[in-house]
Amino acid sequence: MGTVVALGGQFGGAKLADGLYRLRKRDLTVIVNTGDDFEHLGLAFSPDLDTMLYTLSGIASPNAGWEPRGETYRLFEMLKMAGGPDRIRLGDQSLALPILRSEGLASGRTLSELTRDFCQHLDIDAKIVPMSDDRIRTQILTEEGAVSFQDYFTQLACEPVVTGFHYANASEAQIPDAIVNALRAPDLEAVVIGPCNPYHTVQPILEIGGMRALLRKQGAPVIAVSPIVGGDALQGSAGKMMQELGHIPLPRTVAMAYYKLIDGFIIDQVDAEQAEGLRASGIEVLVAPTVMRSPNDRVDLAVQVINFARHIAEVKAEAL
Amino acid sequence: MGTVVALGGQFGGAKLADGLYRLRKRDLTVIVNTGDDFEHLGLAFSPDLDTMLYTLSGIASPNAGWEPRGETYRLFEMLKMAGGPDRIRLGDQSLALPILRSEGLASGRTLSELTRDFCQHLDIDAKIVPMSDDRIRTQILTEEGAVSFQDYFTQLACEPVVTGFHYANASEAQIPDAIVNALRAPDLEAVVIGPCNPYHTVQPILEIGGMRALLRKQGAPVIAVSPIVGGDALQGSAGKMMQELGHIPLPRTVAMAYYKLIDGFIIDQVDAEQAEGLRASGIEVLVAPTVMRSPNDRVDLAVQVINFARHIAEVKAEAL
Repeated sequence: MGTVVALGGQFGGAKLADGLYRLRKRDLTVIVNTGDDFEHLGLAFSPDLDTMLYTLSGIASPNAGWEPRGETYRLFEMLKMAGGPDRIRLGDQSLALPILRSEGLASGRTLSELTRDFCQHLDIDAKIVPMSDDRIRTQILTEEGAVSFQDYFTQLACEPVVTGFHYANASEAQIPDAIVNALRAPDLEAVVIGPCNPYHTVQPILEIGGMRALLRKQGAPVIAVSPIVGGDALQGSAGKMMQELGHIPLPRTVAMAYYKLIDGFIIDQVDAEQAEGLRASGIEVLVAPTVMRSPNDRVDLAVQVINFARHIAEVKAEAL
Repeated sequence: MGTVVALGGQFGGAKLADGLYRLRKRDLTVIVNTGDDFEHLGLAFSPDLDTMLYTLSGIASPNAGWEPRGETYRLFEMLKMAGGPDRIRLGDQSLALPILRSEGLASGRTLSELTRDFCQHLDIDAKIVPMSDDRIRTQILTEEGAVSFQDYFTQLACEPVVTGFHYANASEAQIPDAIVNALRAPDLEAVVIGPCNPYHTVQPILEIGGMRALLRKQGAPVIAVSPIVGGDALQGSAGKMMQELGHIPLPRTVAMAYYKLIDGFIIDQVDAEQAEGLRASGIEVLVAPTVMRSPNDRVDLAVQVINFARHIAEVKAEAL
């Protein structure tokens, strides 16, 4: 068995990474989006990193992986009572990692080092690595101006019409060594793009200077799982964004976002009739149950992803 | 009715201030010790200020006024799980003010301004004022070296033998305007030193450059309530410290610490037989129930304090 690299963020990306983690343990590296990181109350929030940490350590809420199970809001209630900002609802447990991260960054440690420490303490054998230790902040361009995802999602309730994205500082950012090493590993078997928002969760990773070249140079199949199922995103605002950008919220639109990057594309059973059309455009397609409701669903999808990657690798090998 | 100034910290000082607050509302100013403030996890903790805020706003735990009622520790459990420090147990609600304070200080606001905002949001009409906006850190000198009160209390479990105190930066610190104005108010009726540790809760306030002169120049009686009852401190380590400093833990030792500062001294009923000796040394003494178990006890003691101050003022006036 070789190694696997997963990339993405959000709960969808974390659930698939969790399935892969159950199969591969320490042979999994997860590259996590930090473009939606933000500062609030002087603390360093990394929502995609924390969702990944909670999910792979098994403490995530089963239905809301961005926070630990049984979350409470005592600190937030007190904060509001004392005149603090109420626009972002903060869970008690969910504040622990941002507090430790802020202190660590202030003392000169990198996001990679801090995340590695969190993995160790939370008994996660996989390597969870931020896409960069440099500060990258995705700007969502809307008809009402450029905003962070956090502001778009909380203050603006996803209402403004999205016109584009800007990945500030991405091209000049450095790729952490752990990512370079994982993508250059001779036994790399698959690179998996999770079912998450292509625009602000996956694209920022791809925009980092040298990342696309690294992905192209490595020989393992790149597989993406569609976050669009039955005409909309399972969670989040990808469907709405697609429409506003002039696209139809279909798996095809996701595949186009990963043009020339992916070797295989997995769509859900409810979208089975779209497989032929996608194949006609030259994409290898697998139809599979992609909605992960239970822990077993995560492992089942991970098995499908790995087998699909193996199949593609075999086809490639035969073609040579 | 005139105005009243209370000074001190800890739960004892807060409970008496609360009694005075019920009587005087906006006509009370509380000068709070900040010598035991500390930084932890990058956050600005002001334990005496927070105890005062919780107590006067009525949200303090009845038996542990340094935290809000019904405190939980979810964040702390998560923090420890993620490898964070476990030496200081942090309550969920108790972290709200330190987080807001850290952010406020980082953005250039003063401790006085932030505390005034907290009072406003927590519906406290009294003025709670830090003894200074400058950083003062009391060092407890022990046979094992100089430590902060926080380290002495938590990490060292109050074990090292205390040899003295150092009030770092106190003499150069500035007194906030709100304190100067309160102590110069023409209708000032009493200055009340709460039943708290004389060494690290009251003395730091007195060590601020110009504070003793301000207290001496104002005409209202200065009344202290003994924190030593029945041969030991009701709460905390004042009794142990006194013994290690070569004193007997008696009200007299407290009175000596306030030598030439106080006009009247209140001791508990259980120490009634010590009143004569104290009076023989020239101190006006009132024997009263000083142990505040209920909210009514706080008001009762506050009434005794005010009446005692009036009595002393009358005696003084007659003597002129």
